[in-house]
Amino acid sequence: MEMPVETKTSPAIQAADVRAAAERIRPLARRTPVMTSAGFDAESGAHALFKCENLQRGGAFKIRGASNLILSLPPEALSRGVVAYSSGNHAQATAIAAKHVGAKATIVMPEDAPRSKMQATRARGAQIVTYNRFRESREAIAGGILAETGATLVPPFDHPMIMAGQGTAALELLEETGPLDALIAPVGGGGLLSGCATIARDLDPQIRIFGAEPEGANDTYLSLQAGERVSVPHPNTIADGLRSPKPGELTFPILQRLVERVILVSDAELRAAVKFLLLRLKILVEPSGAASIAAVLFRKLPPEVRSVGVIISGGNVDFEDLALY
Amino acid sequence: MEMPVETKTSPAIQAADVRAAAERIRPLARRTPVMTSAGFDAESGAHALFKCENLQRGGAFKIRGASNLILSLPPEALSRGVVAYSSGNHAQATAIAAKHVGAKATIVMPEDAPRSKMQATRARGAQIVTYNRFRESREAIAGGILAETGATLVPPFDHPMIMAGQGTAALELLEETGPLDALIAPVGGGGLLSGCATIARDLDPQIRIFGAEPEGANDTYLSLQAGERVSVPHPNTIADGLRSPKPGELTFPILQRLVERVILVSDAELRAAVKFLLLRLKILVEPSGAASIAAVLFRKLPPEVRSVGVIISGGNVDFEDLALY
Repeated sequence: MEMPVETKTSPAIQAADVRAAAERIRPLARRTPVMTSAGFDAESGAHALFKCENLQRGGAFKIRGASNLILSLPPEALSRGVVAYSSGNHAQATAIAAKHVGAKATIVMPEDAPRSKMQATRARGAQIVTYNRFRESREAIAGGILAETGATLVPPFDHPMIMAGQGTAALELLEETGPLDALIAPVGGGGLLSGCATIARDLDPQIRIFGAEPEGANDTYLSLQAGERVSVPHPNTIADGLRSPKPGELTFPILQRLVERVILVSDAELRAAVKFLLLRLKILVEPSGAASIAAVLFRKLPPEVRSVGVIISGGNVDFEDLALY
Repeated sequence: MEMPVETKTSPAIQAADVRAAAERIRPLARRTPVMTSAGFDAESGAHALFKCENLQRGGAFKIRGASNLILSLPPEALSRGVVAYSSGNHAQATAIAAKHVGAKATIVMPEDAPRSKMQATRARGAQIVTYNRFRESREAIAGGILAETGATLVPPFDHPMIMAGQGTAALELLEETGPLDALIAPVGGGGLLSGCATIARDLDPQIRIFGAEPEGANDTYLSLQAGERVSVPHPNTIADGLRSPKPGELTFPILQRLVERVILVSDAELRAAVKFLLLRLKILVEPSGAASIAAVLFRKLPPEVRSVGVIISGGNVDFEDLALY
């Protein structure tokens, strides 16, 4: 009799987990549109198919992972509430999903998070606890609340339910477009990219998978080079959603196995990408959401990539900040 | 034997013309998405279904009318080219449709038209002739070109093919949403509203139809009150696409018969509507395109209207102007 071999290197999620997530999150996540732009294709030299998660509920893909986790919790756990730490989009998503199931949400958020994100989170009925991201540890603060209340942590990326949920963005995209040469998504902690890569490679073993990361928060880029997880202690980029200092323990092995390369983009390139999509496609994308766009727009993909699925991860921007782009 | 009675009061277009237009323009016009926003509905007190013509080819609904006319021209007429006078969106649409059929396009455009619109028109291969909208008549300038070249005029609104083409926006919207209490569209010369009203009332004899017009360009509002077409000589509003000084000869009788009321909105309300859609729906709408949105957002519809189709007419904005909103 053969025994299944479970080793430390088996991935945290499988394609089946992403498919199960797609069913589970249906009541909460929107099926976002896929857009194209002849003008963008002419500039970039590739046919780009944009998965518009900026038009997602809560303004970002984060609702996919948060609702996948929260909708799988038993009533007894929900009654003790949920806790999240987040620069914003994950916070809103957790608040939305918690409200949907009638659970209390507490959000630990950096005090310099975009005002629009704080307001939106509060408007969802969540309680906000702020911290200084240069001096304090959000994990420690969240840990204190968890110990006190028995609430469930909804981690921003390093959890199988979160990763599988985020992967549904690529599942929907590729179901709609059919086979593509490549797929690219922004990388913060790697939740989105690991989930998307898992399902994309299952649907099409040939598809090439890329990540896009800001130059000032290149922890995944450096980690892939080093062959192990390394930290960038104080990430510095306008892409506030991609400032996580280190890839996840669960996400990183998947990225190592499936991602061909992480492409770095500058803040200036992020701004240009935001502006291009606003003026040409008429959609608002946040700098974090524009990382994958910038990588394609500035022709950083291999030239033989003729068609590319581009995950636009979010669109939450403070109006005052728009003038800076 | 009975003879059909043709009187001066028979409308310039029928619903069948809009249906024929929908077939004709298929190669050129996009089927734009219909969006909704729980946040908007909460603010406005009505369920709004946005027909996103800002996501249309050329950034506005104008491609519908221009391509309906141009695609119906015989080759012999196309060989002499087409001429349009326009504050911008109609110009781009004419240029796009002309290029599609290989016809030369000449555009007569006010010298203070948004820079983005001039550039976009030129990029479509059209020739631009500018004029001063306070001192010169665009009709006279266009007339001179027509006399010289034998080209065909593509009028901005007052032509049955244009009106029928614009109506396809409402046809698509109502096909997708099913019956609604009301429909609202911005009014400039009345091409969009007359076409949309014609098909909407044919699909649903009960639907209530509203126009939205800037306070500083209220020629249709005043004309409906007076029972005849009156002029506002120097319209003054940020909504540059709605600055036409007088309703059309063909559009006005249709508006008189089908439109319940034209609702006036201030420039401040237009700005607020642009900002709301940008930050909450993540889509860019130009001030002209936001007139119908502003009317709903500021609760100017009758309170018994529970569901309303809102035509968002365009999204072409100069980036520099965004800071002003």
